[in-house]
Amino acid sequence: MESVSELLDSIDDVGRDARRGGYSRPVYSTAELDLRGWFMEQAQRRGLDVETDRNGAIWAWWGAPPSNADSGGALVTGSHLDSVPGGGAFDGPLGVASALVAVDKMRERGITAGERGTRPLAVTVFPEEEGSRFGVACLGSRLMTGSIDPDRARSLTDADGVTFAEAARKNGLNPEHVGPDPTAMARIGEFVELHVEQGRGQIDLGPADSSKNAIAIGSSILGHGRWKFTVFGQGNHAGTTLMADRADPMVAAARIVLAVQQVAAGRDDARATIGRLQPVPGGTNVIASKVEMWMDVRHPDDAVTASLVTKIHGKAQIAAAEEGCSVTLTEESYSNTVHFDTRLQSTLQDLLPGAPTLATGAGHDAGILAAKVPSAMLFVRNPTGISHSPEEAIERRDADAGADALADVLAGLL
Amino acid sequence: MESVSELLDSIDDVGRDARRGGYSRPVYSTAELDLRGWFMEQAQRRGLDVETDRNGAIWAWWGAPPSNADSGGALVTGSHLDSVPGGGAFDGPLGVASALVAVDKMRERGITAGERGTRPLAVTVFPEEEGSRFGVACLGSRLMTGSIDPDRARSLTDADGVTFAEAARKNGLNPEHVGPDPTAMARIGEFVELHVEQGRGQIDLGPADSSKNAIAIGSSILGHGRWKFTVFGQGNHAGTTLMADRADPMVAAARIVLAVQQVAAGRDDARATIGRLQPVPGGTNVIASKVEMWMDVRHPDDAVTASLVTKIHGKAQIAAAEEGCSVTLTEESYSNTVHFDTRLQSTLQDLLPGAPTLATGAGHDAGILAAKVPSAMLFVRNPTGISHSPEEAIERRDADAGADALADVLAGLL
Repeated sequence: MESVSELLDSIDDVGRDARRGGYSRPVYSTAELDLRGWFMEQAQRRGLDVETDRNGAIWAWWGAPPSNADSGGALVTGSHLDSVPGGGAFDGPLGVASALVAVDKMRERGITAGERGTRPLAVTVFPEEEGSRFGVACLGSRLMTGSIDPDRARSLTDADGVTFAEAARKNGLNPEHVGPDPTAMARIGEFVELHVEQGRGQIDLGPADSSKNAIAIGSSILGHGRWKFTVFGQGNHAGTTLMADRADPMVAAARIVLAVQQVAAGRDDARATIGRLQPVPGGTNVIASKVEMWMDVRHPDDAVTASLVTKIHGKAQIAAAEEGCSVTLTEESYSNTVHFDTRLQSTLQDLLPGAPTLATGAGHDAGILAAKVPSAMLFVRNPTGISHSPEEAIERRDADAGADALADVLAGLL
Repeated sequence: MESVSELLDSIDDVGRDARRGGYSRPVYSTAELDLRGWFMEQAQRRGLDVETDRNGAIWAWWGAPPSNADSGGALVTGSHLDSVPGGGAFDGPLGVASALVAVDKMRERGITAGERGTRPLAVTVFPEEEGSRFGVACLGSRLMTGSIDPDRARSLTDADGVTFAEAARKNGLNPEHVGPDPTAMARIGEFVELHVEQGRGQIDLGPADSSKNAIAIGSSILGHGRWKFTVFGQGNHAGTTLMADRADPMVAAARIVLAVQQVAAGRDDARATIGRLQPVPGGTNVIASKVEMWMDVRHPDDAVTASLVTKIHGKAQIAAAEEGCSVTLTEESYSNTVHFDTRLQSTLQDLLPGAPTLATGAGHDAGILAAKVPSAMLFVRNPTGISHSPEEAIERRDADAGADALADVLAGLL
C-alpha cells in the first residue's frame, strides 16, 4: 500500500513556481488539470467510479451513490488540489491523498462501503478552494450549496480578464448549469475534510516530535472575508510632475496598508492583510492612475469583523483625500464564523481519543458545507506553523497518522 | 501631403490597452513590431533606404549614408515607437511621424539631402526608450553609444523572465553583436529629436490656444535614475497568522513608499516615485514573502539625487527592521543631468525665432546621444501637461507647427 507521502511524491513536480518558490496551481491551469487527471487515475486504480458534477467537483464513489435522501446519504471526504500562488505542497493535496490512502486502509481492514448495511463513501475534489484565480474562495462548494449567486460566479474574471463562465466552458462544463445542486447535496450524509494545519495551533500544544497532538479535530473556522480597494489618482510622468502637483494613488494606498495593519493590531484576535496589490498602469517612470488592492479580514465575532472593515474604510477615505485621491471598497466574499456540528465533533472525539480540538483561522470547503450538512475537519500538524508559502511542512509520520485517523473516523461513521 | 495627425491616425488602433486605457506598446511586442513595420513602409513609400542596425534601431536614409567621418556626418532625426504601459498616443510616435512629414515638407521646398553639397539625412527609431519591458530606459541608444555594458543588457529580463538576449535573437538580431557601434556613431553629425512635452513647461508660459510657445527648444534633461527595492519578510497564511507574529513586507513597503514621497517633497525640484510594485506571491489570503518595487528619482543636481537616494535607503532600512523585515536597494540605471550642445541650441534659436527654451524632467534618447554627438530637442506643447497617461494630448495645429519647425531646423542644418 502506498503511503500518503509516496502518493504526494508522485505529484511533487506538478506546478512548481520557479519565481515564487513552492507551487502555483490555480484552478483549470495546466498544473491543476494535471492533478485532476492524477486523482481520477488514482481513484480508478482503486475501483472507484469517477464523475465530475455540474460545478466541476470530482466525485470518486466507493459503492453506488445513494439514489434518495432516505438512505441517510453517503459519507463524503476530500479536499482540493488548487493552490495559492507560490503555495506549499500540502494545502489541499494532503486531504485528497489521505482520503485515497484511507480507502486502502479500510479495505485492508475488510471494510466495504455501500454494501452489507454500510453506506457508500465518496472522495471529492472541490475546484477553486483558494479563490486565487477568480477571487472567491471555495467557489466550487459555494456554487453547489447555493451560497453564491451563479450569475455573479459566471461574471467573475481572472487577472487576464477571462470570465469564470469562459473557463468553465473551456473545461467541459456548461456555464448555464453551474449553481445550486440539490441532488448532489442530498447525497451527502456527512462531510469530513482532512487538511494540513495552517498555523501554530498544534505545535504550540507540545513538541512536534511527539506523536501526541499530531492530529487535531476542528471546532470552528474563523469568519473571514475579502474586500477590494480601488484608489483613484492622477496618472502622470514621474519625471515632469512636481511632488506638489501630484495625486499619487500609490502614496494613498501605502497609507491604507498601514491603516489596515494598525486597525487589526488594535483588536485582540483580529487579522487583516493586504497581500495583493497592483498599481495601474505599473511603470517605473509613471505615477500610477489607480491602485487596486485586496484585503483579507478575519475575527471570530462577525460583528467585530464588520466594525473593523468600517473603521478601515473610514481611515482609507481620509488617507485618499489627503493625497487628492479617492477610494472605493467593495466586498468580494464573506463567510460567517462556522462552528462545526457538535454531535459529529463529539463522535470524532470518541473515535480519536486524546486528539485535541482546534479552531482554525483558515477557510475550507468544509466550512461552506457545514451550513447544509454535518461537517467535520481533521488537522495534521505543521511543524513550521507556516502555510500559503513554500515553507509549509508535514512530517511523514504525521501524514501516516493522519491517514490512519481518517480511516478510523470514516470506518466509525460508515 | 499627409499631416502629422493623419499619419498618427493611421496607427490609432495599434496596441490599445483596454484595461489601463491608452496604449501599451512594449519593445518587440506585437504592437511595437506592427509600428516598426508601419514605419518601414512609410519610409519606403518616401523612397528612403531602410536598415536595422545591430542594436535594433531602424535607420531610414535620404541620401547615401556617409562612408567616413570626414564628411561631417549625416543629419539625424527621430524618436521611438515603444510606450510605457497605458501610455499616451504621442510619446515617441509624434517625433517619428513629424520626421517623416518634415522630409515631405523639405522635398516640397525643393531640398534634396545627400546631393549637390547637402549632407545625407536619416530618420531613426530607437528601441526600448521607455525601458518598460527590460527596465533600462533608452536601452537602444545606450547600447549604441556604449553607455551600458552589453553583458548586462543581454541578461536583463522582462516580467516573464525572458532575457533581452532571447528577445533580440527572436527579433532577428545577433545577441552577441549588440553593444557599442562606432561605425553607426561616426555617421551621425547632429541628432535632433522632436517630442511631445511631458509636463506643464509650455502651458505655464501662456494660453494653449495661442500659436506662441507651441514649439520649444530643449536646454537640458534632468538627471534621473531607477532603483529596485526588494523587501524580504515571512510569507504566511493571512488567516492563521496573528498580527503580532508577522513580518509582513507589504507593511514595510508601504512605509518605504511614504518615505520616498516625504524625502522628495522636502527638497526643491526633486521628484521621487514608486509606480511599480509587486508583492510575491501576491495572493489575497497570503501574507507576502517579499515585495519588489521600483523607484524613479530625479533632480537637476546629480549630487543631490545621490544624497536623496542615500537618505531614502536609510529610512527604508529602518522601516523594514521595524517590521521584522530586511530590504535591499540596487541601482538599475542612472543618467546625469544633460545640458544640450550650446552651439546647436543657439542655431535652433536662430532658425526658430521666438521659440522658448525648456528644461525637461523626462529622459530621451537625445540625452544619451548628447554625450557623444551634438544633440538637440524640440518640444511640442501638451495642453493637459500630463504624460505617461492616456490623457497626454496634442492639438492638431501644434502638431503641424512641430513638423514645420522640424523641417525648418533640418533644412537649416543640412
